[in-house]
Amino acid sequence: MREVFQQELQEVQERLVEISGLVAVSIDNATRAFNESNVELAETVIADDAKIDAACAELDELAINILARQQPVARDLRIVVSALRISASLERMGDMSEHIAQLARYRFPDKVVPKSLRGTFKDMGALDVVMARMLVELLKTEDVTIAEAIRNEDDKVDSLHLSVFDKVLGEKWKGEAVDTVDATLASRYHERFADHAVSIAKKVQYLATGDWVPTEV
Amino acid sequence: MREVFQQELQEVQERLVEISGLVAVSIDNATRAFNESNVELAETVIADDAKIDAACAELDELAINILARQQPVARDLRIVVSALRISASLERMGDMSEHIAQLARYRFPDKVVPKSLRGTFKDMGALDVVMARMLVELLKTEDVTIAEAIRNEDDKVDSLHLSVFDKVLGEKWKGEAVDTVDATLASRYHERFADHAVSIAKKVQYLATGDWVPTEV
Repeated sequence: MREVFQQELQEVQERLVEISGLVAVSIDNATRAFNESNVELAETVIADDAKIDAACAELDELAINILARQQPVARDLRIVVSALRISASLERMGDMSEHIAQLARYRFPDKVVPKSLRGTFKDMGALDVVMARMLVELLKTEDVTIAEAIRNEDDKVDSLHLSVFDKVLGEKWKGEAVDTVDATLASRYHERFADHAVSIAKKVQYLATGDWVPTEV
Repeated sequence: MREVFQQELQEVQERLVEISGLVAVSIDNATRAFNESNVELAETVIADDAKIDAACAELDELAINILARQQPVARDLRIVVSALRISASLERMGDMSEHIAQLARYRFPDKVVPKSLRGTFKDMGALDVVMARMLVELLKTEDVTIAEAIRNEDDKVDSLHLSVFDKVLGEKWKGEAVDTVDATLASRYHERFADHAVSIAKKVQYLATGDWVPTEV
């Protein structure tokens, strides 16, 4: 029984790793679609989000099933409950990729943001991709130094997010309202993606260190 | 034992009702602070969000504690897991109220959005408040007709959200970049608040009807 349970916990972990891998691909594709205004890639991201949603729903069912059959307590219980929360964050990360891809599709064949912001969004997108890949490693290894690294990357995303507003609200900004709207939404989506990564990193970190972390995304 | 368990499930429900009440107050204050540029009220909302976060964290601990001690199965298990998810959505709704209040505070003593959009935001805010109050009733009564009503209100919020972009991107828009940014973010926050209400409504609805709903916010 105990052994079966450990195998099931391992499957939960493997599925989280698998889903985080899907999310890493989706943000990589989404940011490339966004930066290169590649509409096919954007449509791939939008289509693939349904797979992420389905994988999360399946994981949730597995986790609830484990709760019902194995009735874990203490740390084991925290692990299963955390899996449900991590799944919810991964699902939202997929949604952020989709939103970024949708902006690319709406604007096609134009680029979403004007020249003056492209470098900033390229950097923000690259950071989101790095964080997503770190997340895969973190979920695979539970190495808390990676959790720390994710939180550091998020600080960079936050400052880029602020710099977008500095530019949009600066005197040199020549963008039209549509550029301002797109830049605002795109920056928000990139920043939220990173926030969810941090939220997951915290949960893994606290699990590994034995403390507990309240719900927050 | 069974009786104790039923009492604990009832306490979980009562706490959800209580937290949803705090959220209803926060969105009421936030939208008034936003529409009337009332900075004191905005600061109240921002301060009160910590109380909502704490209440959600306490509820989560209670729910996890119930899972550990009572090891519920079947529908009882779904109820406790749903409570954890509903708590996460309520926590985010509080964050949206806080974001709306922060916009009011940043702009003070000016209004956040120009005249041409104030009516739209007044309506969107009023709908968010109505939905939050419906949510309190839904969590209290588990009357699924209320869940349906919440979903209908959300359709109105979505169309107002789109109408904000129609105005901002229309020829008549005279707003500066800062107005465009604020209108975009404010509309997004109002819309997300409503989305979370729908997400909770669905969970209650499916619980009441015995079906299950995958994670989505």
